[in-house]
Amino acid sequence: MGVEERRQQLIGVALELFSRRSPDEVSIDEIASAAGISRPLVYHYFPGKLSLYEAALHRASDELASRFVEPREGPLGARLLRVMGRYFDFVDEHGPGFSALMRGGPAVGSSTTNALVDSVRQAAYVQILSHLGVTDPPARLELVVRSWISLAESTALIWLDGRRIPRAELETQLVHDFAALTAVSAAHDEEMGALLRRVLAEEPADGPFGDLVGRLIALAS
Amino acid sequence: MGVEERRQQLIGVALELFSRRSPDEVSIDEIASAAGISRPLVYHYFPGKLSLYEAALHRASDELASRFVEPREGPLGARLLRVMGRYFDFVDEHGPGFSALMRGGPAVGSSTTNALVDSVRQAAYVQILSHLGVTDPPARLELVVRSWISLAESTALIWLDGRRIPRAELETQLVHDFAALTAVSAAHDEEMGALLRRVLAEEPADGPFGDLVGRLIALAS
Repeated sequence: MGVEERRQQLIGVALELFSRRSPDEVSIDEIASAAGISRPLVYHYFPGKLSLYEAALHRASDELASRFVEPREGPLGARLLRVMGRYFDFVDEHGPGFSALMRGGPAVGSSTTNALVDSVRQAAYVQILSHLGVTDPPARLELVVRSWISLAESTALIWLDGRRIPRAELETQLVHDFAALTAVSAAHDEEMGALLRRVLAEEPADGPFGDLVGRLIALAS
Repeated sequence: MGVEERRQQLIGVALELFSRRSPDEVSIDEIASAAGISRPLVYHYFPGKLSLYEAALHRASDELASRFVEPREGPLGARLLRVMGRYFDFVDEHGPGFSALMRGGPAVGSSTTNALVDSVRQAAYVQILSHLGVTDPPARLELVVRSWISLAESTALIWLDGRRIPRAELETQLVHDFAALTAVSAAHDEEMGALLRRVLAEEPADGPFGDLVGRLIALAS
């Protein structure tokens, strides 16, 4: 294998191990063994576990960010629901590693790892603004979108801790939460009200937002 | 001064400095100077900056946790609104230190600091369950309360970054967000529906939850 090919193979093996258990618990010996090479050869490509962890996290970050990409077609609610499905696929595949990273700690909290986590949040934020068709967001819209992204993170982390609520329910619920947080903001601000009306005008009655309205009417009666 | 008295004084001085600027930027020399003692004397009481930072964070955590304590009297909406007022007071007083801590990083992300942050989240969670009169929360209620606490954190962090939205609006909005997230969960689950109805039955029309309903009706019409 060439140098770059070997590096990429090692990153793949490491990502697999760092995803399935807390990175604290994964040793270089184990990575070497899973890759079928010697421990010194691992150090030939990566100076230490942290640099290999950061490279694996880089690949995972790119992959997670790409899951927010979605064609600009059709109603927003259905787009967000597809994004949430791919988001929970990722969380499901990388559970223990995702938890360890997001909960922080000495082994996983370096300035590089923090920058990678922030880059995924920023990519998600840019994608959602683009779905909303907004290029220069007012402060209240920025707050709703960024705080909803953090709500999706905390919901995923709580889900991973025991998986006591079905995934599909949480995916739908997060789309409903987006509508609810936007509605609360719109209840306080006219510009947000106009944005909400514009989005809802394009929603079909049988989409996720229509579903929420139906459920809330049933709840109130 | 006695040993314990001097330690407490140093913690107070350090907390003040760690609150006003990112802890990375605060030196032991500066803390010594602000306390009016020599640098070696600081090291006599604390082995290094990290241990002094952790002691200051311990005090700040106790203080923040205490702000979620509120008499079990009157409607829930008004109680949550008072808690949010005290929460934003704290965030306001400790802005740069709060941001640096919650955004993580090498200087502030140790297992001790993570445990302190978690202890505040847990104290807030226990307080809110107690306000709801629930001792054995179902998984969906735990999700709503814990994810709302994380929403309050992210809202506070976004507010600190430029303070572009009035604080009082965000305090009210977070109480409204609590109602909205509970309503979305109730729209998916009968047990949550029963809890929401029980809480709303005790709410006055002029309380924060009544205010939200009025605003949403105005928005829809």
